[in-house]
Amino acid sequence: MERVERARARMGELGVDVLLLSVGPDLPWLTGYEATPLERLTMLVLPRDGDATLVVPRLEAPRVEERPELFSVRAWEETEDPTEIVAGLAGSPSTVGVGDRTWSRFLLDLQARLPGVRWRPASEVTAALRAIKDADEIAALRAAAAAVDRIAARLQAGDVPLVGRTEHDVAGAVAAQIRAEGHQTVNFVIVASGPNAASPHHDPGDREIEPGEIVLFDFGGTMNGYCSDITRCVHVGEPPAELRDLYAVLAEAQAEAVDAAMVGVPCEDVDGVARRLITEGGYGDQFVHRTGHGIGMEAHEDPYLVAGNCEPLAPGHAFSVEPGIYVDGRWGARIEDIVVATEAGPEPLNTADHALAIVEA
Amino acid sequence: MERVERARARMGELGVDVLLLSVGPDLPWLTGYEATPLERLTMLVLPRDGDATLVVPRLEAPRVEERPELFSVRAWEETEDPTEIVAGLAGSPSTVGVGDRTWSRFLLDLQARLPGVRWRPASEVTAALRAIKDADEIAALRAAAAAVDRIAARLQAGDVPLVGRTEHDVAGAVAAQIRAEGHQTVNFVIVASGPNAASPHHDPGDREIEPGEIVLFDFGGTMNGYCSDITRCVHVGEPPAELRDLYAVLAEAQAEAVDAAMVGVPCEDVDGVARRLITEGGYGDQFVHRTGHGIGMEAHEDPYLVAGNCEPLAPGHAFSVEPGIYVDGRWGARIEDIVVATEAGPEPLNTADHALAIVEA
Repeated sequence: MERVERARARMGELGVDVLLLSVGPDLPWLTGYEATPLERLTMLVLPRDGDATLVVPRLEAPRVEERPELFSVRAWEETEDPTEIVAGLAGSPSTVGVGDRTWSRFLLDLQARLPGVRWRPASEVTAALRAIKDADEIAALRAAAAAVDRIAARLQAGDVPLVGRTEHDVAGAVAAQIRAEGHQTVNFVIVASGPNAASPHHDPGDREIEPGEIVLFDFGGTMNGYCSDITRCVHVGEPPAELRDLYAVLAEAQAEAVDAAMVGVPCEDVDGVARRLITEGGYGDQFVHRTGHGIGMEAHEDPYLVAGNCEPLAPGHAFSVEPGIYVDGRWGARIEDIVVATEAGPEPLNTADHALAIVEA
Repeated sequence: MERVERARARMGELGVDVLLLSVGPDLPWLTGYEATPLERLTMLVLPRDGDATLVVPRLEAPRVEERPELFSVRAWEETEDPTEIVAGLAGSPSTVGVGDRTWSRFLLDLQARLPGVRWRPASEVTAALRAIKDADEIAALRAAAAAVDRIAARLQAGDVPLVGRTEHDVAGAVAAQIRAEGHQTVNFVIVASGPNAASPHHDPGDREIEPGEIVLFDFGGTMNGYCSDITRCVHVGEPPAELRDLYAVLAEAQAEAVDAAMVGVPCEDVDGVARRLITEGGYGDQFVHRTGHGIGMEAHEDPYLVAGNCEPLAPGHAFSVEPGIYVDGRWGARIEDIVVATEAGPEPLNTADHALAIVEA
């Protein structure tokens, strides 16, 4: 309820008359209820002044835990049009905030039913609020991080066979461990071997892992509503000197960027630290993405550690620090921790070893 | 390429100048490439006349299999604004079709950059095309259906222990089997026991399954791009006579609705057959959802078997037939098959036994 009050205060500052929230994390952050991402619309109508209503398909009404202090429930029948119901509940607003991930087909319907309205992404209201994690949220992120740390440690110890298996098979094994370690959802598993490690968002495929290759693992899920996200690399057998050098540049850049993530430091400066060290190491052109993203109920959310984002880090900001170096056609590497900004300094939630682990062929 | 030509012909009929496709199935259906559902925009700009461009984040460009006959690639850097690039490529359109699931935050940005444009959901162009499956697509749906049929058969045979386990644990076991049977993605697993079976979209929770209860399983995934979706119920020990009677009404309604799904029959008539039989059986008020949904690359897509949809079934339409009866506080049941409409009559792809299987306590 305190979150709803903060959201309403922010709506007042921004002149937003009503929030319309569907799929995505704003709705569960405010109410505990998560919309099913289907063609049947679920939408919370949250006026700045007045009572909130959760519009849900009738067959999903039994899933809703009633919270009369937060919202009433309006279940719609299969032959009703839910956008008509939402538009009626929204009244005659001047400015509406619509959930960032709401499907465009619903926004187009709502725009037709509420002409003349100024539409804004709901994140203008919610993102800055959600970016500051409270103690319970940090505890949830810490637990999720510890769970994937244990998986990373097993990968580094060589407990998961790699050679002769496909990336896809190994990714399946990692996914099973993410669930076994207590996550309800597997959000993604990247297993990128040899030259595929040069593709930052590689889809694990039929390529078999061979001796003498680096294998990049980047994986995460959702555990009790909060996300994990970790990247570690292992090498099958002894790595060549050139790759050791690359990895040393990367590891220093990652560690220095974590240390730089002090309260008050602009987000882009953390990116700048990693980028400067990697550029000085000779790999500037091969670091093709930002240094990090916020994390919470969403795998990627504010704050983003990217050039151009001057927002200063604040206590309770939680984010990834994950520089990478990608050499097309040869190999790549990335190291990623989740870090929380605190008055006492940056606190990494992931503590799995940062060295390039060597596993037996 | 033939699909792109059909889409362009339909754009011409509807006066749509350009399609903007992001997350969701339209993009892979047309190009084979699937957008990552993240805050970094991926969007295909497909003019009715002129060359198509796939706008992708630079770090995902290595994932794109180049298809120069279909599109060129425009990779955007982390400090660029992708909606500016998309708006530039779109030219000066009068009417734009935007992918139905495109995140609203991107649509709002695009609307600001392309003022005065008429915006339509891309499904007005694509849905009717995608709803008619070709032979390869039906083969993919058949293979996915056979995979989940094998899982259903094991559940019906009692091969998966139920009593004393939580719904969540059992759902994890089913999810693992969905992957083991060849699906790349688990889309959903409903395990609803006892009174929870009265909630059609129940989230499996900490409730332990007990002897004397019905357990409703509804699960599916994506295998080689196409979805599976099946519902079967088992009963732990002998069911009471009242539940047997309910199930007999349901099973007859489901079978008759499948038989009614002939080419040329309006979609709503299939729903009407199931609804009439369930109403005659005394459970009309407890059948709270439509009879079915189309299925393909998307778990739910056109055509929908629902009152008000007068569209006639056509050869190649693939859809679920899944009536259910839900008695609040007591129990519920649903039976679901995927069916393809053919000139020779409805062809069910799922063949797992339709009876209420009895498993040992």
